[in-house]
Amino acid sequence: MSAALQDPRSILLHSTDNTAVAVDSIAPGALVRGVVAKARIHKGHKIALAPISLGAPVLKFGQIIGFATQPIEPGDWVHEHNVAVQEFDRDYRFAEGAKADDNLLPENQRASFQGFRRANGKFGTRNYIAILTSVNCSATAARFIAKEVERSGILDDYPNIDGVIPLVHGTGCAMDTKGEGYEVLKRTQWGYAANPNMAAVLMVGLGCEAFQIGKWKEAYGIVESDAFRSLVIQDMGGTRRTIDAGVEAVRAMLPLANGYTRETAPASELMLALQCGGSDGYSGITANPALGAAVDLLVRHGGTAILSETPEIYGAEHLLTYRAADRAIGEKLVDLIHWWEEYSARHGGEMNNNPSPGNKAGGLTTILEKSLGAAAKGGTGTLRGVYRYAEPVTAKGFVFMDTPGYDPVAATGQVAGGANVLCFTTGRGSAYGCKPTPSIKLATNSDMFRRMSEDMDINCGDILDGVTVEEKGREIFDFILKTASGEKTKSEALGYGDAEFVPWQLGAIM
Amino acid sequence: MSAALQDPRSILLHSTDNTAVAVDSIAPGALVRGVVAKARIHKGHKIALAPISLGAPVLKFGQIIGFATQPIEPGDWVHEHNVAVQEFDRDYRFAEGAKADDNLLPENQRASFQGFRRANGKFGTRNYIAILTSVNCSATAARFIAKEVERSGILDDYPNIDGVIPLVHGTGCAMDTKGEGYEVLKRTQWGYAANPNMAAVLMVGLGCEAFQIGKWKEAYGIVESDAFRSLVIQDMGGTRRTIDAGVEAVRAMLPLANGYTRETAPASELMLALQCGGSDGYSGITANPALGAAVDLLVRHGGTAILSETPEIYGAEHLLTYRAADRAIGEKLVDLIHWWEEYSARHGGEMNNNPSPGNKAGGLTTILEKSLGAAAKGGTGTLRGVYRYAEPVTAKGFVFMDTPGYDPVAATGQVAGGANVLCFTTGRGSAYGCKPTPSIKLATNSDMFRRMSEDMDINCGDILDGVTVEEKGREIFDFILKTASGEKTKSEALGYGDAEFVPWQLGAIM
Ligand SMILES: [Ca+2]
Ligand SMILES: [Ca+2]
Ligand SMILES: [Ca+2]
Ligand SMILES: [Ca+2]
Ligand SMILES: [Ca+2]
Repeated sequence: MSAALQDPRSILLHSTDNTAVAVDSIAPGALVRGVVAKARIHKGHKIALAPISLGAPVLKFGQIIGFATQPIEPGDWVHEHNVAVQEFDRDYRFAEGAKADDNLLPENQRASFQGFRRANGKFGTRNYIAILTSVNCSATAARFIAKEVERSGILDDYPNIDGVIPLVHGTGCAMDTKGEGYEVLKRTQWGYAANPNMAAVLMVGLGCEAFQIGKWKEAYGIVESDAFRSLVIQDMGGTRRTIDAGVEAVRAMLPLANGYTRETAPASELMLALQCGGSDGYSGITANPALGAAVDLLVRHGGTAILSETPEIYGAEHLLTYRAADRAIGEKLVDLIHWWEEYSARHGGEMNNNPSPGNKAGGLTTILEKSLGAAAKGGTGTLRGVYRYAEPVTAKGFVFMDTPGYDPVAATGQVAGGANVLCFTTGRGSAYGCKPTPSIKLATNSDMFRRMSEDMDINCGDILDGVTVEEKGREIFDFILKTASGEKTKSEALGYGDAEFVPWQLGAIM
Repeated sequence: MSAALQDPRSILLHSTDNTAVAVDSIAPGALVRGVVAKARIHKGHKIALAPISLGAPVLKFGQIIGFATQPIEPGDWVHEHNVAVQEFDRDYRFAEGAKADDNLLPENQRASFQGFRRANGKFGTRNYIAILTSVNCSATAARFIAKEVERSGILDDYPNIDGVIPLVHGTGCAMDTKGEGYEVLKRTQWGYAANPNMAAVLMVGLGCEAFQIGKWKEAYGIVESDAFRSLVIQDMGGTRRTIDAGVEAVRAMLPLANGYTRETAPASELMLALQCGGSDGYSGITANPALGAAVDLLVRHGGTAILSETPEIYGAEHLLTYRAADRAIGEKLVDLIHWWEEYSARHGGEMNNNPSPGNKAGGLTTILEKSLGAAAKGGTGTLRGVYRYAEPVTAKGFVFMDTPGYDPVAATGQVAGGANVLCFTTGRGSAYGCKPTPSIKLATNSDMFRRMSEDMDINCGDILDGVTVEEKGREIFDFILKTASGEKTKSEALGYGDAEFVPWQLGAIM
């Protein structure tokens, strides 16, 4: 037997799994993690590492992907012929998999980072001044204000400030002010204003738009202060005067913003947004589970991680209802799923995330397993909360926020929810970056990591070569702490983040 | 009698009208345009200038706003008690009001401007290089390419080029590639690439997005050339290399783009986009009819004008079907109206443009009259074509393009349709500006014109003080020719246009 046959590569995605994934095709008789393969197991398919009795759960990612429909022996190929999910799929089993505390570490054993403490006790990982816009009609004025402040060179005198961000968008008018699109925009704007990575906020409007700054301030009890100013072009008498007044307003905010300095903060003050985009066949076995391992660590250290992208977990919501902390949290998720069915139907489409014949040929057995490839980045913790798009996230631990899968829109919702750091897994190679929230990009494969080395922060492709998911998880966790403490990510070095504010647009544009 | 009573101000909106609009409240017995008022006629309401027999059309804006339900005498107050539209409203009367040629001037009497002749024979009024983006994920790369070219100072050596425009947006992925949202984006991108104000185009993509540049090029038969290049971040190996290659691609386009110089072009090569935003009570009696008068002139000179903003003519489509050149054109408009009913219903709303009690108190008698306040900017010409959003406009004369009322979205569709100049009426004061199409802003009232003098190009408020609609129309027409020949508008001087590319987003964001 050749060395290759004796030791084909495989990945164990979680220490509690009873299956491993073949990286190379496994020949019958080959030795895999101490088990002799009983059949040919193709690349991407699963081999049983332990006996699984009839009806017992098949585990991958530390989670149930289905149940044995016949007794499975170590070394067996594990796929449709011996696994099914029917029972599980018909029952949400609310909170049955909930754990009391996700192995929370005692406070004195928890990691820390260097962050900016805000008046409300939250910590920022960056220190920005935001220029929000109520409507596209004030976008150019907002951008010119930021540009003039930047050009003036005055920021050199305020070294603790990371920059001035114009957050412009294409909506804010010709919309139903009683509709969900308006509510989403309202929450998103508030969420950005309140994100702990913001030191101060200027909001610029036109005047006659549907999104009225006055009403918005009233809704959230926002008052004008050294940290919040608003300006309306029609009240100011045009663009030039608005820019002048805006530059003045930002200048007046600089001393306050610069007064924030980094101090030691517990890792429990981190709120991590989880994203993936441009997935490939490796996403579900390298970067996503590795990020999941980092999330499990973050959760043990008292932090928060937000899984999102509802269309990608569709059909496998049982995974999350099962590990919801309580029934109410699980039911919130089920409500979201129903909303998406209605939303798709409204646009003449339908939701479908079932494994395709191609998925099955590639080794994905059940919809749970397919969705877990995406959801794996959320780790294995108990689901502590379910939030609508851009809602403030208040729970600690692992939570879910409803968003589309589309990266900039999804991330915008999470940042509005309060995320102060973001991890983004990508196979094809995303160029995403965000302000005010630093975004760590994780490559699923070494080829792409090398090809796009100036955009990628961490290579998870080496998991295929033997680095364990746990090891990679620790590497990511450490990187998160360093990033949170001020080390720049690749996308920050490139200057990303001024064009990626994309609030979810819902409802008719009239 | 005081002078005020003898000569209260009024507006005659078109030379063929049998009604005038009171600018000041008219007392019974006051003399108005040679007619003695028979009743109190409030500000904004109409006075009859000629006898109107039972069933005869009541004319305002040179168009039918209703029919007399009783004989009307000169000096009568004209409102709901003696006007109704029921008959007209139930029948589209396709093409009954069509004219053979809209008084087209002989070619040797037509005006001209100085424009850039393109290979296809069309003329630009500006000479830009565009950087299009297939998806939000390539937005930052596109903006950095433009920024580096600008910063390098190399444009100083190419004085015929107006600039490099990054046209970024929030969509391009997580959409149904068989849906109408995708088609709209496809057309919009093509329309911008083909707009005669573009000398050359670079398109930047990420690689894994739904909007595939390769497929798009195939759909329109676009081939790589000195005037068109595309770059894909994932193929290039990341952001930095894409920026470098993009800067190189733009530099290579500069000699070709700079080779275009202004030459004499007939006014028939002008395609004028009509917009209004931030309307007020004066829009329908000053700026809109004045712009309509300019459009009638442009049409006589062989040019094209695009009316849009379908929700604002809803319920009064009869106005346009009546003056459609033929039944097919009228039916296309009716189809659009039905599409909007379905679109609104899909989002849980409904279309309604009826005059409200407030509208009626302000003097608006019928839905035709209300919609004409908006449609007046299209003038009185025969409707020569009806286009879907962002479709290439091929007809000469007065045409309609389906768009929402939302300014940046509506204008984006018109520019994609080929508009090389734009007129925008505003009462509250819009700050809109566009690249590549220069945008002339028309104030409806003198107060706002003075208050926002750095944003407004033309004051139409002086119509209230006696300047006639015809005079103002000629002023606007002359201004259009000067602008088309290179004179900068206020919004161009301010630098607007990099944040106002907002393709209409339709369909679910997944
Ligand atoms: Ca995504
Ligand atoms: Ca299901
Ligand atoms: Ca409008
Ligand atoms: Ca009607
Ligand atoms: Ca109707």
